[in-house]
Amino acid sequence: MRIDNLCVNSLRCLAMDEINTAKSGHPGIALGAAPTLYALYSKVLRVSPKAEKHLLRDRFVLSAGHGSAILYATLHACGFNFSMDDLKSFRSLNSRCPGHPEVGADNAIDASTGPLGQGVANAVGMAIAEKHLASIFNKPEYKLFDNYTYCLVSDGDLMEGVANEALSLAGSLKLNKLIVVYDSNKTTLDGKSDMSFKQNTALVFKGYGFNVIEVKDGNNLNKIISALNKAKLSTKPTLVIVNTVIGYGSSLAGNHKIHGAPLGDEETEKLKQKLGVVQEPFQINEKAQEIFDGLKEHYDEVFAEFEERLQTYKKNYPSDYRILNMYLKNDFSEVDKYIGTLENKFVSSRVASGEILNIVSDNFSNLLGGCADVSSSTKAQVYSANFHENPVGRNIMFGVREFAMSGIANGIALYGGLTPFVSTFMSFADYLKGGIRMSALMGLRVLYILTHDSVMVGKDGPTHQPVEQLAMLRAQPNTYVFRPCDYTETCAAYSCALNLNAPSVLTLSRQDLEPVNSSFENAKKGAYIVLKEDKKLDVILIATGSEVQTALAVAKELTESGKGVRVVSMPCMEIFDSQPDSYKESVLDKKVLTFAIELSSDASFYKYISNGEVFGINTFGKSATPTDILKELKLDVKGIVAKIKKYLK
Amino acid sequence: MRIDNLCVNSLRCLAMDEINTAKSGHPGIALGAAPTLYALYSKVLRVSPKAEKHLLRDRFVLSAGHGSAILYATLHACGFNFSMDDLKSFRSLNSRCPGHPEVGADNAIDASTGPLGQGVANAVGMAIAEKHLASIFNKPEYKLFDNYTYCLVSDGDLMEGVANEALSLAGSLKLNKLIVVYDSNKTTLDGKSDMSFKQNTALVFKGYGFNVIEVKDGNNLNKIISALNKAKLSTKPTLVIVNTVIGYGSSLAGNHKIHGAPLGDEETEKLKQKLGVVQEPFQINEKAQEIFDGLKEHYDEVFAEFEERLQTYKKNYPSDYRILNMYLKNDFSEVDKYIGTLENKFVSSRVASGEILNIVSDNFSNLLGGCADVSSSTKAQVYSANFHENPVGRNIMFGVREFAMSGIANGIALYGGLTPFVSTFMSFADYLKGGIRMSALMGLRVLYILTHDSVMVGKDGPTHQPVEQLAMLRAQPNTYVFRPCDYTETCAAYSCALNLNAPSVLTLSRQDLEPVNSSFENAKKGAYIVLKEDKKLDVILIATGSEVQTALAVAKELTESGKGVRVVSMPCMEIFDSQPDSYKESVLDKKVLTFAIELSSDASFYKYISNGEVFGINTFGKSATPTDILKELKLDVKGIVAKIKKYLK
Repeated sequence: MRIDNLCVNSLRCLAMDEINTAKSGHPGIALGAAPTLYALYSKVLRVSPKAEKHLLRDRFVLSAGHGSAILYATLHACGFNFSMDDLKSFRSLNSRCPGHPEVGADNAIDASTGPLGQGVANAVGMAIAEKHLASIFNKPEYKLFDNYTYCLVSDGDLMEGVANEALSLAGSLKLNKLIVVYDSNKTTLDGKSDMSFKQNTALVFKGYGFNVIEVKDGNNLNKIISALNKAKLSTKPTLVIVNTVIGYGSSLAGNHKIHGAPLGDEETEKLKQKLGVVQEPFQINEKAQEIFDGLKEHYDEVFAEFEERLQTYKKNYPSDYRILNMYLKNDFSEVDKYIGTLENKFVSSRVASGEILNIVSDNFSNLLGGCADVSSSTKAQVYSANFHENPVGRNIMFGVREFAMSGIANGIALYGGLTPFVSTFMSFADYLKGGIRMSALMGLRVLYILTHDSVMVGKDGPTHQPVEQLAMLRAQPNTYVFRPCDYTETCAAYSCALNLNAPSVLTLSRQDLEPVNSSFENAKKGAYIVLKEDKKLDVILIATGSEVQTALAVAKELTESGKGVRVVSMPCMEIFDSQPDSYKESVLDKKVLTFAIELSSDASFYKYISNGEVFGINTFGKSATPTDILKELKLDVKGIVAKIKKYLK
Repeated sequence: MRIDNLCVNSLRCLAMDEINTAKSGHPGIALGAAPTLYALYSKVLRVSPKAEKHLLRDRFVLSAGHGSAILYATLHACGFNFSMDDLKSFRSLNSRCPGHPEVGADNAIDASTGPLGQGVANAVGMAIAEKHLASIFNKPEYKLFDNYTYCLVSDGDLMEGVANEALSLAGSLKLNKLIVVYDSNKTTLDGKSDMSFKQNTALVFKGYGFNVIEVKDGNNLNKIISALNKAKLSTKPTLVIVNTVIGYGSSLAGNHKIHGAPLGDEETEKLKQKLGVVQEPFQINEKAQEIFDGLKEHYDEVFAEFEERLQTYKKNYPSDYRILNMYLKNDFSEVDKYIGTLENKFVSSRVASGEILNIVSDNFSNLLGGCADVSSSTKAQVYSANFHENPVGRNIMFGVREFAMSGIANGIALYGGLTPFVSTFMSFADYLKGGIRMSALMGLRVLYILTHDSVMVGKDGPTHQPVEQLAMLRAQPNTYVFRPCDYTETCAAYSCALNLNAPSVLTLSRQDLEPVNSSFENAKKGAYIVLKEDKKLDVILIATGSEVQTALAVAKELTESGKGVRVVSMPCMEIFDSQPDSYKESVLDKKVLTFAIELSSDASFYKYISNGEVFGINTFGKSATPTDILKELKLDVKGIVAKIKKYLK
């Protein structure tokens, strides 16, 4: 083992080089968790640089994303696609080694991390995906899918609610191939973790249904490896607690001040001496390098075994293999065949969504998702078993855990071959905002089905009535927010959402929506004219969702009083904004008096309007009937017509 | 006890009347948790209708806010300020009995609830406030503050991450006067909770550091009362698990379908027969009414004891009593005396904030707050002890628990006499969005100190760089978002924030900010001119925070090329929007070419601009130096000048 310890120490020093050169980063965890990273990559993880994204590989999520420097160092040393030059560019523009790990097609990073806690949910999602695909493709006599998901967490990760939500679910689902490795250094940015984290974590995890193994000395490689190997045999998910020292080897070892402060050259030199590592900056000790080089053989074997397993499967189960490839393509480009010509009808868009989701699910088997315990209301359930009863089932009961649901969906999407959908009430978009941001940042196709999309929710009152959520979601980069006005537009929203490599939010009504003169093809352009003015054009009304009905009713009254009115339905701003100018100008005209109607914060619409007004809501809702609420807000048809007429005078 | 059971059953039926009349509501929990509510209000809680908001009362949070009907019924029967007419108006416009409980000055509701999990955090906040005030005002020989905080939670509450964050902290802080009562009906909206919630909750709570007591039969009043009384003696916070049956007594008892479906008149009639309750709709059984009437004496005694305790304190400790009254006023109207004339200086606004917060804290003792484990970065720490070491201390170490931090702050504010401040990095505003919404909905003065407010964070990368968060927060009703441009404006932001009865968000820079020609008094108007045009006015530049510097540099270049340029600093849109039109028109002019500069999603500014452009960011950031990021985004001075010059041609 002594030579292995040299490898660990060499990695520690290399990570310090990265941080010193960048003049920023997190030495504390890098020095403390180095043995765990080394143990994982050299002895435990079934991965291979020959195919960084191999379908059959073990997954690894560094939930404590601030440990990036030691991860890059380890991956480099083990021969993965991180060159020494990459390490030298740590934290600089367009580096392959950014401040926190970023998932990429050409690297061995399995999830972008940084915001604490979410990596745990990602890992749970990956373990769910593995279990689901294994249940579909594995044979009693032949296992194709058989990987483990490892997740390295810090004290901070385990304080975060999202992690606890995900862990409680993982225990309930008995995800025995999930192994959470807890780098327990009992220190956080502000000091000793017992300031606020005196919990008996082993007991909490046992309560969640985990198997718990503790490694007393986080520098004892043998013990770490044996704990990880024992974890693989458990019938429950496992927590491996590795007791470590933050900033191990440095003069600030054990002190929270080492968390985010670069050592500098001098202190790094001392560290090298203390750890007995002879190497220049951005070098690996010669003897250690030999060991790392020796891993190639092991990784080649892993790769060969993966390929053999896949090829044997292909040979013995050719039709399953074809289906597997369909999964892996994850391709919905033909979805319009099924949902492009459905008849418009008088239902709520949540009911429409439920029907469409099922039509899609009947024809594309790679949808896997569920709801945060309100599926009977959001209708986001498919005709399939429930995952917790049978992992072949495509409905996951997430429990009342919105944030973890989102993080788990990200994990499912990251695993590959599956398109996740998740659902809750739209006002609880707040709870999962942090998760949908990561969907967007990673460019993951996740369908967020958020129903009860306005104050029209009614009697449940302001806590259940979204007001600012549309503006919040629209402001987020790389996120597509759909608010369809009827059944047909809901079909169009699904068609778009299923073909994007980004998250989509489908915001859907609780109340029934009258079919309007909508168009499936036009709706896919983001915005289009649903009522064309007769000859002259006095007023343009823009509306989304349930307010397209309102706009049409307003238009009717204005038209009757002799005005030329155009009504534009705008189901998706992000798509409309990406249309060519010529199209945009054919729909909107800033010279014309323009009004927008949406039962939502007004912020999103001003960019389309240079004279006119946005009829929105900038107060919270009320507990009352929808009709009473609209009257109170003066946003009923009568109220809006009166306001517009003032402009026309 | 038989007569007590009659009282419980009478309340059950009264709650059904509310729900039947509203044709919506949640009978499941109302029928199941009725004995717990009755036990609390008739035998355990130290509260009194004679002073619904008495300082010394026990606090009660119905975290499972969908149980509102049984709470209103209980409060009515016990003589609190909810009339039978109020009950009849359940869930209708402007009713005192809205769909979910709403805190009010004239009612016995201690917290608005509805979004699950948050009530738990509120209760933890109340227990912290009690412990803090007790440590300040109680004497070794005389206890003034001595109340318990009770919180009724459902399965759903305990699945939510925010609850688990708060509970883990409560255990660490040994908040022994917190009593969480778990209405364990093992059922959620979508079915049996063991679909996704198989955890051993008792074990999890023991891990958190709680005392756990279980009541096997949730209809056994004696056992419930004795468990609650035992809980009061614990040196740790206590969880009382009350095993109940959802929809008890109805034909759907034990079935999740009863969660949110009104019984209707016929089924309610059957329920009455089954429970042996003789009463008309919106009546209380005569014998039960006698018992409820008899409570008056008890409540009068409680009130008399509160008053006596307070008066004795006043008599024996007159100077402490005066200080207490200063706390209770919670009045910062004189704060400008201390922060209105500080000299501007060249520091980051987070450093400015840290200094100002301390000046305020030195002069006003009722600030209590803390940070989600990044206080050394956000500088949101006051010169005082740490609460976990000594409850007199005003710094709470929340751990890495942003959402609970927000909910706890709401609880502190609700308790009375204290103004909470909380802090984290601005990109993690996502994590606490659900909590700040409740601050706004309840109109609570909570200071959210969110630092590292743009891509200028630099090397930590996109997960740590806010982009859409300003738009998200500004879109939220009743929320004041400040983005000061220098030290002086940071003072102004504090001055405003401390005098609002609403949450404020102070978004602050990581990087140093050059003092500009700012004005404390003008900044308090929300927006004002920091650079006046010379003679003619060609261009108006609006900017906030660190971009005011940028705008001034841009203005310099444009002025040099002969243009008349005005620069407007806009530290708070919400305040500016509330100014009289005459003032607004003196600052902005829509006829003039106007540009806004903010390193943030552009959505918030279009309402101020009818020709011109918003220079914002609609993509995620990057891990790089701030300078490299700005150049990449073409938002450096050179890039912006070039773009504006195109318009001027």
